[in-house]
Amino acid sequence: MSRKDKLPVMAITLGDPAGIGPETIVHTILDKSMYEVSNPFVIGNRKAMERAAGIRGVKLNINEISSPEEAKFEFGIVDLLDTGVESDAEIEYGKVQALAARQAYSYLEESIKLGLAGRVDAVSTAPINKAALKLAEIPYIGHTEIFGNLTHSPYALTMFHVQKLKVFFLSRHVSLREACDLVTKDNVLRYLRDIDREFRALGFENPSIAVAALNPHGGEGGMFGREEIDALIPAVEQAKAEGINARGPLPADSVFAFALDGHHDCILSLYHDQGHIACKTLDFEKAVTLTLGLPFMRSSVDHGTAFDIAGTGKANGNSMIEASRVCAEFAARKMALKAV
Amino acid sequence: MSRKDKLPVMAITLGDPAGIGPETIVHTILDKSMYEVSNPFVIGNRKAMERAAGIRGVKLNINEISSPEEAKFEFGIVDLLDTGVESDAEIEYGKVQALAARQAYSYLEESIKLGLAGRVDAVSTAPINKAALKLAEIPYIGHTEIFGNLTHSPYALTMFHVQKLKVFFLSRHVSLREACDLVTKDNVLRYLRDIDREFRALGFENPSIAVAALNPHGGEGGMFGREEIDALIPAVEQAKAEGINARGPLPADSVFAFALDGHHDCILSLYHDQGHIACKTLDFEKAVTLTLGLPFMRSSVDHGTAFDIAGTGKANGNSMIEASRVCAEFAARKMALKAV
Repeated sequence: MSRKDKLPVMAITLGDPAGIGPETIVHTILDKSMYEVSNPFVIGNRKAMERAAGIRGVKLNINEISSPEEAKFEFGIVDLLDTGVESDAEIEYGKVQALAARQAYSYLEESIKLGLAGRVDAVSTAPINKAALKLAEIPYIGHTEIFGNLTHSPYALTMFHVQKLKVFFLSRHVSLREACDLVTKDNVLRYLRDIDREFRALGFENPSIAVAALNPHGGEGGMFGREEIDALIPAVEQAKAEGINARGPLPADSVFAFALDGHHDCILSLYHDQGHIACKTLDFEKAVTLTLGLPFMRSSVDHGTAFDIAGTGKANGNSMIEASRVCAEFAARKMALKAV
Repeated sequence: MSRKDKLPVMAITLGDPAGIGPETIVHTILDKSMYEVSNPFVIGNRKAMERAAGIRGVKLNINEISSPEEAKFEFGIVDLLDTGVESDAEIEYGKVQALAARQAYSYLEESIKLGLAGRVDAVSTAPINKAALKLAEIPYIGHTEIFGNLTHSPYALTMFHVQKLKVFFLSRHVSLREACDLVTKDNVLRYLRDIDREFRALGFENPSIAVAALNPHGGEGGMFGREEIDALIPAVEQAKAEGINARGPLPADSVFAFALDGHHDCILSLYHDQGHIACKTLDFEKAVTLTLGLPFMRSSVDHGTAFDIAGTGKANGNSMIEASRVCAEFAARKMALKAV
């Protein structure tokens, strides 16, 4: 037994077994650094893991467990919790299959059950497939909705993490015009309060939150749009009055560079591409998504199931390793604070 | 005489003498690599150059010239063309002064006169000050307008350049909502034609131009906005039918990363921050602006006059050196093609 008490217990969920998830997890669980930042184990099934290991040309030393308490957390041994959902069924790589989605969903349910019980501190998820979820009649469109609903969290904040950048999003999956409409004082203020609360819970003292501007040059005094004057400045002023270390609005083309230089702890971006362009141009492979506001830490890689290359051995685990590393790091922050 | 015939003759204009321009130019003109990529000379005045050199703790060996033909283009000798506009007047650092703007404007007029006559191939401009231009009642708001008007060019295309990224802008200094309105088939098609023409004139064979999408995930089939379907796809199709190597629309959060990997020669971004965020997050100091479509190549640094630090010695010339280097490189491309 080599569980390290100061490190988070981290469940790595297999994702859709028809995708590249299992291959990236084999790569991840055979990376020694994972055991230096966490107590990791896999929620998935033996068949998928062994098949993926075969593709990578390695043999796994699997320790089947029925709970994280049975795990060894030793590098070289793969602790595997199999949910038993149709574990022996044949799954075809690269194909939308209801069966695959039912398996993937069972891994998530298990991770959430353990997370809510305080038996895992972190969940690092491999990709699931939206079309397969739909085919299996699972009533969620993605991870965010599954975690939000099954944990009964009042909110779930998506944070992008790459290098020194930590980026939140006022909106994401809406048109750019609709994103403009969502830039209101109330929305911005609500996000500032939620981010401030979550960052304090992670041990950041008086976290500085820079609000990106919507318009070029921050609107240049109203010449290029009025959202800064009508919504952003009032929201930041109100947040400051509440003791939140909010800043801005700051021109969006420099705020990320300044955050990289350490000027801000995090950034509230106002639309999907504003934050995504910064993060993914900087390092496409190592952009990690964290979900804050849940009872445990949760990360997601920024790629999908990649059905086109699943089973070919082309997928690498660099994104999965980075996502798991960042997830463990943030979970450890929370644990350190609780231990005080 | 050490003029190198295959290298462009490049005028470096001093900019507003009350700003950091002169200091950055002293740094630039004392950088030996400038003489390896161009035949450089300064258009400005002795007093400003000597004062800036003093701040940097160096002494300049100035060769005053009245035309580029008199220049020596030798590292260690600073060829200086003084326009004679109030050259002896006292200019105060960090202050908006009409006198300073009149000097700066005379440097630009001279560079344009020489450029139109084919006596300089490239113009690298140090920053001017908008408020000073206004105070001096010079009827232009910035460099782009001055160059566009005085060269009588039918269009002037602004291109951002950093690392391997070459980025154009469908619009720049308008609100984000107005930028959305400007995403029309006709506008996009006009830009694709102009970019294609300019890139061919620079020696790019069948240049690939990626059009960034407006909405997240490229609109995801109309779910997150219709501009891709209504304007961008038709524009790209029409451009292709005309023999232009246009691509997309491609999701804006990955198109820059793919261009960095060499997949596209350049990108047409649809609004100011879309392209600026990518370039400036990648390398804040080395983002260079080129103007294509003029009879000569023109570059500009991406910083302003920085009145707050002018005269203190804090400014460095890294941006100015990079802007001049890129300007010379593109001018040389054009010369090579003309020589064939």
